Amino acid sequence: MGSSNILDNVGIVLVHTKTPGNIGAVARSMMNMGLSRLALVRPPRDRDNEAEKFAAGAGSLIRSAARFATLAEAVAGDQLVIGTSRRQGRLRQQVRSPRDLAGLVVPMLAGNRVAIVFGREVNGLERKDLALCHEIVTIPSDKAFPSLNLSHAVTVIAYELFVAVQATPPASRPALAGAEDLERFFRHLQGTLQDIGFFSEERPDRIMFSLRQLFGRARLEPRDVRILRGILTKVQHPSRPR
Amino acid sequence: MGSSNILDNVGIVLVHTKTPGNIGAVARSMMNMGLSRLALVRPPRDRDNEAEKFAAGAGSLIRSAARFATLAEAVAGDQLVIGTSRRQGRLRQQVRSPRDLAGLVVPMLAGNRVAIVFGREVNGLERKDLALCHEIVTIPSDKAFPSLNLSHAVTVIAYELFVAVQATPPASRPALAGAEDLERFFRHLQGTLQDIGFFSEERPDRIMFSLRQLFGRARLEPRDVRILRGILTKVQHPSRPR
Repeated sequence: MGSSNILDNVGIVLVHTKTPGNIGAVARSMMNMGLSRLALVRPPRDRDNEAEKFAAGAGSLIRSAARFATLAEAVAGDQLVIGTSRRQGRLRQQVRSPRDLAGLVVPMLAGNRVAIVFGREVNGLERKDLALCHEIVTIPSDKAFPSLNLSHAVTVIAYELFVAVQATPPASRPALAGAEDLERFFRHLQGTLQDIGFFSEERPDRIMFSLRQLFGRARLEPRDVRILRGILTKVQHPSRPR
Repeated sequence: MGSSNILDNVGIVLVHTKTPGNIGAVARSMMNMGLSRLALVRPPRDRDNEAEKFAAGAGSLIRSAARFATLAEAVAGDQLVIGTSRRQGRLRQQVRSPRDLAGLVVPMLAGNRVAIVFGREVNGLERKDLALCHEIVTIPSDKAFPSLNLSHAVTVIAYELFVAVQATPPASRPALAGAEDLERFFRHLQGTLQDIGFFSEERPDRIMFSLRQLFGRARLEPRDVRILRGILTKVQHPSRPR
């Protein structure tokens, strides 16, 4: 209660989980750390109620979990979307640590909803799902045996958020632009770059991935999106008055 | 390897665990966080090899685990014995947090062996076992639902130790674009916006201030600046090949 209420603005999103027991263990860990909002994208069938068994009393989180067909729908109402990834891909130079992430997220929670997205066991998030994330967090682990169990990964992130909330008085931060607004901006940006022939030599994907990460890190406010889209419109239609 | 070798001097001791699967999940988590030494006091029978299944590749830790009849025997060779407990009993006023514990333990590891002791699921360590511990650590959790899964509790402690060991050498981060580069980019941006008539109605200052803040938060790397300036050049000279 009290200061930990702001953790209701954190959503844990599990994408294409394979094992129902892991969803249960995640629910338990979330409830231990004061998190309440669980979203499931393409969850597995669970004929034996295995998730409830592993939830050990946190079954209410599973029963109240929102279910979605795509990650884009699951995060449509969130201002900041954070993907978890253990691979340090070529385009993911700026990964955050869980502690760093908690320091970023907790002061924002007063006025924003934040989603933290976990991919399926073994493979993690696919590239198309990572592209929807504004920041990437990587849990440190031993290079010789780096792959964490899904509920262990959630435990580390949730623990860091819980500790940071306990340590930090709530602050007021400006509300950021929502994920839907951001997607419209990215489509507008890609369309404009196509109009001016920017993609002539290479496929848009790599450039757009970099631009998504770049503007994701910028934590755009609604006014920023208006300015940027105003610029794009002016580039597309130079003679039209603003 | 390298600096994480000193984690070989940390032992995880599980007392009277009920569920073999939890021992497997603990082994996996230990190996993720560079821990290698597992001791089992009165472990459960495991006819179905459930522990190996949950270990997901860390079965070697279970097979090489030392087995004991009492906690006193298990910690006989350790210099510091730390008990985990979630209850704040009358005799346990001075509990440490996991982070505090890591700060205490890591500097000692060069010349000492440290045991961290976890009791059985649900009830935790009994009083007689807690009495053998020199320090008590409590994992923070929500008062309304405080009881962590055993492997989740080990994950939090092992993660804090791993992070504390890693914190010794400086972390390598990608180099960000320098201030001079950024200024050149901002001048290029302002010039381009002037070229396309974006500032017709208002002075550039306010807009440029917002754009500077926005791109400042994005922590631009040199490659990001190249992409953005490539876009600006294309806007200024649409027909010039890139």
